[in-house]
Amino acid sequence: MGRGKLYIVGLGPGDSSHLTARAKAVLEDSEIVLGYRTYLDLISDLLEGKEVIASGMREEVDRAKAAVEAAASGRIVSVVSSGDPGIYGMAGLIFEILKERGWSWEDQVAVEVVPGVSALNAAASLLGAPLMNDFAAISLSDLLTPWEVVARRLDAAAGADFVLVLYNPSSKGRKEQLSEALRIISRYRPPGAPVGLVRNGYREGQRVTVTDLGHIPEDEIDMLTTVVVGSSTTFTFDGLMVTPRGYAGRYDLKAANKITGAAVEART
Amino acid sequence: MGRGKLYIVGLGPGDSSHLTARAKAVLEDSEIVLGYRTYLDLISDLLEGKEVIASGMREEVDRAKAAVEAAASGRIVSVVSSGDPGIYGMAGLIFEILKERGWSWEDQVAVEVVPGVSALNAAASLLGAPLMNDFAAISLSDLLTPWEVVARRLDAAAGADFVLVLYNPSSKGRKEQLSEALRIISRYRPPGAPVGLVRNGYREGQRVTVTDLGHIPEDEIDMLTTVVVGSSTTFTFDGLMVTPRGYAGRYDLKAANKITGAAVEART
Repeated sequence: MGRGKLYIVGLGPGDSSHLTARAKAVLEDSEIVLGYRTYLDLISDLLEGKEVIASGMREEVDRAKAAVEAAASGRIVSVVSSGDPGIYGMAGLIFEILKERGWSWEDQVAVEVVPGVSALNAAASLLGAPLMNDFAAISLSDLLTPWEVVARRLDAAAGADFVLVLYNPSSKGRKEQLSEALRIISRYRPPGAPVGLVRNGYREGQRVTVTDLGHIPEDEIDMLTTVVVGSSTTFTFDGLMVTPRGYAGRYDLKAANKITGAAVEART
Repeated sequence: MGRGKLYIVGLGPGDSSHLTARAKAVLEDSEIVLGYRTYLDLISDLLEGKEVIASGMREEVDRAKAAVEAAASGRIVSVVSSGDPGIYGMAGLIFEILKERGWSWEDQVAVEVVPGVSALNAAASLLGAPLMNDFAAISLSDLLTPWEVVARRLDAAAGADFVLVLYNPSSKGRKEQLSEALRIISRYRPPGAPVGLVRNGYREGQRVTVTDLGHIPEDEIDMLTTVVVGSSTTFTFDGLMVTPRGYAGRYDLKAANKITGAAVEART
């Protein structure tokens, strides 16, 4: 029996245009591709002639186990995640299962994580440049992390002037976490703090909104939305959201001017 | 005069294998490509027949201005960043300059940020899966952000159990920031807390190290290194660093077992 291969592959945010060359190459190399149905549909052009195992949203554990089993039996397998499998994606679960099985690098299964453009990178690119300075990524889902831990992180990150990237901000059965998160953030940020919302970035129905903390359309935010809350230096112009790399006066823009007026005003 | 185009393009972490299809397409579309010399060398195969303007590390402002000028004169221009231009990259500076010039979406210059696989995504993929739960990205450079702000963020993020990703941890003339950062983190994390170091990820001379907070080889860390400090649930096995998506007992691994013992033990 040959040595199995297990690729944990990031598809990037949308269709195959934000896929990396490496991701494309390992998909081509694979005999079996497993993933969430909606994401596999976005790359159907790359799946011709492959064994494709599509599953539902809540079936990550079964999917991960099936992928490990197939690779352990000597096959070449890709398990795909939207965005980056290393950011709130499938990579952790796969390694937890491999650890349970006593896997090691000398094992019969070779494992490679193929990084991708995550929701965070995608949202930032569509909003302008909100992540030029320090930021914190926080998932508002309390399915897997106790809400007290999430709330403490929101408080700490908002208080220390991080740009905030909120994953899983809201779902059908879970609305109050977003409201509570915004209440926590509002202790530290004024109602005018810039907020960006990206829904379905680089997919059909893409919607990009730049607003502020006092005017967030909570009803329009769902699990397909990434929320970016600016820091004290983030400014907006012409529908874009930009956090300067430097604090006012520190970046020498030379003849192009020192720093934008808005950035200076936004500092408290 | 035609309408100029300005692409702000992420090259991904290494050579062209982690480039996205969109990044490749806009480079092909471009008449002029501007960037830091070392990064342009990594994609020389894509630059044939282009006007290439290579500059040094400290010349970002001039580079950004030259790119804007060329696009404003009607040309098709790419300015490239290693990794993702939206994460500590060139995108913010370009928008600051565009704002100074009174640019708007109806202007004669069309602007697109093309996201890429950043150092953060790349480091995570090489270390295993350290970013499966909430994390904070912090640059230790105090060239553009006052150290008091950086220190406050380190304290807040370490105290709230974020995984920490440290950019620009150290340079030739700047060693003490890393030591001070590790002192701050050590107030909240035990000496056994997992730490991953990725130097030159996906490039020649790549070095991946998984160690712990008590054994960090500070002398080996430079500006080409990304440092990832695990949270209370991060565990290591076989040279990998994994943060479970769920807190202990919350993720139902079913027959594959509840959660790893190491993850439970690591909780304080």
